[in-house]
Amino acid sequence: MAHLLSTSCSIKLSSSHRPLSQPFSQCPTKCLNFFKLGASKYPFKKFVLQNGTRQANCVVRAAVAPISQETPTQSSSGPQQNSSEPFKPKRVMVIGGDGYCGWATALHLSNKGYEVAIVDSLVRRLFDQQLGLDSLTPIASIHNRLRCWQSVTGKTIELYIGDICDFEFLSETFKSFEPDAVVHFGEQRSAPYSMIDRNRAVFTQHNNVIGTLNVLFAIKEFRDQCHLVKLGTMGEYGTPNIDIEEGYITITHNGRTDTLPFPKQASSFYHLSKVHDSNNIAFTCKAWGIRATDLNQGVVYGIRTDETEMHEELCNRLDYDAVFGTALNRFCVQAAVGHPLTVYGKGGQTRGYLDIRDTVQCVELAIANPAQPGEFRVFNQFTEQFSVNELASLVTKAGEKLGLDVKTISVPNPRVEAEEHYYNARHTKLIELGLRPHLLSDSLLDSLLNFAIKFKDRVDTKQIMPSVSWKNIGVKPKTLAA
Amino acid sequence: MAHLLSTSCSIKLSSSHRPLSQPFSQCPTKCLNFFKLGASKYPFKKFVLQNGTRQANCVVRAAVAPISQETPTQSSSGPQQNSSEPFKPKRVMVIGGDGYCGWATALHLSNKGYEVAIVDSLVRRLFDQQLGLDSLTPIASIHNRLRCWQSVTGKTIELYIGDICDFEFLSETFKSFEPDAVVHFGEQRSAPYSMIDRNRAVFTQHNNVIGTLNVLFAIKEFRDQCHLVKLGTMGEYGTPNIDIEEGYITITHNGRTDTLPFPKQASSFYHLSKVHDSNNIAFTCKAWGIRATDLNQGVVYGIRTDETEMHEELCNRLDYDAVFGTALNRFCVQAAVGHPLTVYGKGGQTRGYLDIRDTVQCVELAIANPAQPGEFRVFNQFTEQFSVNELASLVTKAGEKLGLDVKTISVPNPRVEAEEHYYNARHTKLIELGLRPHLLSDSLLDSLLNFAIKFKDRVDTKQIMPSVSWKNIGVKPKTLAA
Repeated sequence: MAHLLSTSCSIKLSSSHRPLSQPFSQCPTKCLNFFKLGASKYPFKKFVLQNGTRQANCVVRAAVAPISQETPTQSSSGPQQNSSEPFKPKRVMVIGGDGYCGWATALHLSNKGYEVAIVDSLVRRLFDQQLGLDSLTPIASIHNRLRCWQSVTGKTIELYIGDICDFEFLSETFKSFEPDAVVHFGEQRSAPYSMIDRNRAVFTQHNNVIGTLNVLFAIKEFRDQCHLVKLGTMGEYGTPNIDIEEGYITITHNGRTDTLPFPKQASSFYHLSKVHDSNNIAFTCKAWGIRATDLNQGVVYGIRTDETEMHEELCNRLDYDAVFGTALNRFCVQAAVGHPLTVYGKGGQTRGYLDIRDTVQCVELAIANPAQPGEFRVFNQFTEQFSVNELASLVTKAGEKLGLDVKTISVPNPRVEAEEHYYNARHTKLIELGLRPHLLSDSLLDSLLNFAIKFKDRVDTKQIMPSVSWKNIGVKPKTLAA
Repeated sequence: MAHLLSTSCSIKLSSSHRPLSQPFSQCPTKCLNFFKLGASKYPFKKFVLQNGTRQANCVVRAAVAPISQETPTQSSSGPQQNSSEPFKPKRVMVIGGDGYCGWATALHLSNKGYEVAIVDSLVRRLFDQQLGLDSLTPIASIHNRLRCWQSVTGKTIELYIGDICDFEFLSETFKSFEPDAVVHFGEQRSAPYSMIDRNRAVFTQHNNVIGTLNVLFAIKEFRDQCHLVKLGTMGEYGTPNIDIEEGYITITHNGRTDTLPFPKQASSFYHLSKVHDSNNIAFTCKAWGIRATDLNQGVVYGIRTDETEMHEELCNRLDYDAVFGTALNRFCVQAAVGHPLTVYGKGGQTRGYLDIRDTVQCVELAIANPAQPGEFRVFNQFTEQFSVNELASLVTKAGEKLGLDVKTISVPNPRVEAEEHYYNARHTKLIELGLRPHLLSDSLLDSLLNFAIKFKDRVDTKQIMPSVSWKNIGVKPKTLAA
């Protein structure tokens, strides 16, 4: 892993088998000055891993301030705080900021002028180690990622490494950073992971539910005006035979009418954990006046955002395995390596999808337009609906244009879900706030396929077929055979 | 606490300040024979506290088999297993069988001829110690309770002491007892308790959600035909402005129709934990074919059941404090000691109520008529609706008949809830199965008031006023001052 106290900025990839082809040529000079300015802002001892809590957490300020640039105080285009104007957040804590959506979001917000802190336990990287998986793309350590971001843009992102289930750690991050908004990606986010065995099912629900409870208590105790932007999932709704609304539905029943939470029918212990979170958050908005936005996100695809494109060391992760990979990303990697596209069952499963460039845009819109105190606001965060068969067909066509011979196979569905069903979900609130969607186009598919082809030597084809069964989950801990 | 391995059956009350007035006169002779038959059925070493798991759990067989009576094999009026007939449960595990509803239920099922095991960590007794509370009624240790039950009826109830959040312990209970039905009362069941501080909020959700997950996994792994009878709460629904259905509601929306889970709006971390459980159970019914009945119970009142009346040492607990006491029970104790009835806010809060004699009847009906494999069945378990003001008025009238001068005061509502609202909840499914309700009558109120008067010297009036605020809950652990 990264050498936190090293003054060298040479690229050290945390889980890559191969060095990057393009070294970070601008880095060494700037990084030699790392501690000069760093130490002037933060006492040196703050950089030392702290181990004062029962669990092994550490609060790390990984700010890199090159001598040629002052830490920017406020971007002219960025958000401003003015006491005579409505609440304008400028300090954003991104929990889970080392992950797929979290990393892209943290950079995007930093680039837009927000003061950003990443809070992450890095357990997502541990999952890869434990399951023998790896990102398609080589990714740098979080420490090197942030040093690179600083060098490229002059912007500082603070880093707190620890587990939000440890309230002592979380309290420290709140008291230290004083966020105006918290974007909460810090959950175990894979449905198959939550269905591997009892231990991982329990971990998923404990980690997600208790972590979110702690965030709610931290907001109440330390930053009661802080806006919680919580990542939920469209999967909370399941696949009802009626149109899915955004969070609430008005029901007339026996001559009386009320607007109530839209009924939930989640289909994995992971999806259920998000339902539990939504219910807990809604209660605290009502009881404590918390302001919260629940982003019921669809399936995210894509790899590049404006910010991660700035330097190879800022590259995002891309999961193609059957545990963490999502449908479209998986299909593109399968096509690139000549593996048949794996459609689960009949392939009529329809879901909402969005480009990762829209994920970061949606989160920014939610932050810039905060919920009111006491408001529990729900946005359905996706831009288009596709069935799995439609995705397979799109990837097949795009692959053929690139000269790939793309086959599709139906594999026994490892999940318990309807394979042919009605699906129509509303998703207008983010559009009304100004979202300009990147719809799935031939050019995006070309780009994603080319990306997959570029890294296809890193693909472990053993990770492609589904290995986790919703019906066969048991109580014995599972370890992949060597 | 009880002397588990003692051959003396003298009454030792776990948390009473006073000895019982009527000693257990029939006990000593029978108990001197305790180990004779006990040892023939269970090897002596099984009685020894086992400490093999990481947490301090023990599996205890507290069976008391007097030499004059064989352990009954099968009551002639009790349930029978016959391979040519539909599934008829006869072995019932009662998790939380030392608590208010659990104890009454365990005795009732044992009396009806079921083979019963109680699984309990006894943590409810610890809560009392930690908060400085006590049952109005003196209650015997679980060990003495079961010895008494054996002596009075000749029926054996097995006892497993441990925490169901410890899966190693729970597995052992399943493999050892092999239940046909599990009645799950084993949760932290007080809304105010869950709102004391962050630690207790987190404990409540962790304990309830993970405990129930473990039960589901144990059923799947060890007893896949076992019927889960889970105690939920009417509080899961909140107080919507439409009629509350039993678990599901048929919604027509934009010209399409589906029957979906009734929307949930729980109003404490405790009530939320029950919502989480319901969602988790529903998923496992669908994914694994678990058979489950969710009993959304109203507020329980009363103390006596046919079985707890059989001997003073079988007496149930009665909570009158502001943390664990429920509305009607609290009012009766308040009237008995001359404390004004404490109506929270306007008193228009309306809920479903039932007599504890109906709790045990409902659970028995659910067990005798199990859900089908894969079915998630929801019953609303209450018999009448009352507002808090209506209850206060009923208790006032009943108290006046007994010569009590009953006053009512409105105290600031410590909860966040509507104090005037529409409320109409369906509760027909248990009636259709044969429930014959004990409706709240003058005679019941007389009996409950007389009971409270009998024990009024045990009342600690400091525990009557609400001390837990939904809005003021914080992150610092709370301890009552001495």
